[in-house]
Amino acid sequence: MNKPDLEAAALVAVDWGTSRLRAMLIGRDGGLLAEADSADGIGPLAGQGHEAAFERLVAAWPAVPALMAGMIGSRQGWREAPYVPVPATADALAAALIGFESLSHRRVSIVPGLVLRSAARDGDVIRGEETQLVGLIEEEPGFSGLVVLPGTHSKWAAVEDGRIVDFQTFMTGEMFELLARKSFLRHSVAEDADDIPGSAHFALAVRRSVQEGLPFLSAIFSVRVRQLLDAVSGDDNLAYLSGLVIGGEIAAARASGLLAEGRPIRIVGARTLGRAYETAFGIAGHAVAVRDGGSLVRTGLVRLARASGLL
Amino acid sequence: MNKPDLEAAALVAVDWGTSRLRAMLIGRDGGLLAEADSADGIGPLAGQGHEAAFERLVAAWPAVPALMAGMIGSRQGWREAPYVPVPATADALAAALIGFESLSHRRVSIVPGLVLRSAARDGDVIRGEETQLVGLIEEEPGFSGLVVLPGTHSKWAAVEDGRIVDFQTFMTGEMFELLARKSFLRHSVAEDADDIPGSAHFALAVRRSVQEGLPFLSAIFSVRVRQLLDAVSGDDNLAYLSGLVIGGEIAAARASGLLAEGRPIRIVGARTLGRAYETAFGIAGHAVAVRDGGSLVRTGLVRLARASGLL
Repeated sequence: MNKPDLEAAALVAVDWGTSRLRAMLIGRDGGLLAEADSADGIGPLAGQGHEAAFERLVAAWPAVPALMAGMIGSRQGWREAPYVPVPATADALAAALIGFESLSHRRVSIVPGLVLRSAARDGDVIRGEETQLVGLIEEEPGFSGLVVLPGTHSKWAAVEDGRIVDFQTFMTGEMFELLARKSFLRHSVAEDADDIPGSAHFALAVRRSVQEGLPFLSAIFSVRVRQLLDAVSGDDNLAYLSGLVIGGEIAAARASGLLAEGRPIRIVGARTLGRAYETAFGIAGHAVAVRDGGSLVRTGLVRLARASGLL
Repeated sequence: MNKPDLEAAALVAVDWGTSRLRAMLIGRDGGLLAEADSADGIGPLAGQGHEAAFERLVAAWPAVPALMAGMIGSRQGWREAPYVPVPATADALAAALIGFESLSHRRVSIVPGLVLRSAARDGDVIRGEETQLVGLIEEEPGFSGLVVLPGTHSKWAAVEDGRIVDFQTFMTGEMFELLARKSFLRHSVAEDADDIPGSAHFALAVRRSVQEGLPFLSAIFSVRVRQLLDAVSGDDNLAYLSGLVIGGEIAAARASGLLAEGRPIRIVGARTLGRAYETAFGIAGHAVAVRDGGSLVRTGLVRLARASGLL
């Protein structure tokens, strides 16, 4: 991607999350002309300097309008973009973009998150993943089923006929970090391990969680017991713990009625994590297809830009 | 308890856990003559200086034999006392005490923990709570049912006809600390709150967990959502989070078959925590009786001392 055709540039599409800022220069035809990213996530910026961080990153590009998704639209972001309630379509999200002119006279738009109200658990929110969901709906217009977006806070969304109708958050990634790094189990697991998705210990933990119904709050203590009584290695135990949290998430989604027999499933995520979820779903008896999250963000932003006249 | 009758002293009964060292001077009749405690738990001592810490605490008392329970018998303790398998009686535990003479020529005995082997979850261990269970069986010889010992690692034991037949560990207390202090939920809860067991938010969370089956890994995210969407206060949210972990523990015990309709239940624990569990069990539809853990430790140690000829 050397020498981008800057003449054709029409939009800066931005994925601005808690830890990273990613910008893509997009042509009039929706094609990718250039990419840039930095560590100026919403977390490190701590509520200020958003415009400076952004302009620094894209200084070499033409001053075309920018469309941003992610935590940049949260209370700690640049401007707060209110949530859109589900069920929601891409057009509903596009109609609810917030737009303003920055100090450097750039037209900036921010994608709203999604909100769900629920008597059973008050509610739930998504911010950032809605754009990947829009991308998936754009690329697979006929898809109806579940979209699982693993991460620090894993999001499961139900999509039907081009609409996002339901979703639920599981604190899986954060739970894994808390248990592996901050709990007393940290003495029983390695810092890292090769090929967790391929480990028999990962598979065992998933099986116990999703097939045998071992409850999560009790199951996790067995990580310590396995080390104490059976001298299970830190590597194997890390894989086991990973299987307990991912298996626990799948079991929880089943218990809450979200995961039902035969419902088509897409997993949107990075390589290793995507493979871990694919393996876990396989053990649970569900076929899945894995999609690349980065390309879905771009597709989603282009779709929203077109719907709102930015492209 | 001024001027203890040191002439009558026959035993130092010791409850030596991770964070505290508690010693009780016991008379020939099993009565309490004096008490002392310090912050020299197994954790702070980090594997050394056990004898010095103990002799410092009881320097004013006669050099009678000592019987110790708790983490002092773990690998990080003074001497490792191997686990006794369940089902186990008080006499089986007494027969498996480890005994040695300390450098200062005191006869020291340590109570073993309990081990359970299980195909479903490899196994489980208890260290310290076995002595409270012996105390409870001594005080209520006819009791058959469940004994719940809440704490950092909450232990549930099934007792039948004077025997400990089954048990299971739930990482409830540690989970609460991790979520309230180290997770991103820490921004959504207060540091402390008055009367958590009496809070309607505590009750709501227990109800959702045990009656409506809201799965734990998903339910916890609602702590953030309640703050974000409904401006729920940090105090109310701390009570809600407490209800989710305790309710989640009860739901997990039900799922694992340990908690069944009509099974008598004793809760052994400190005041506020005991009341929180009592309230939660009430919402779950189970009557319970709360017992004081400290006095059960003493009863248990006296029982084991008598069975092994130390008293």
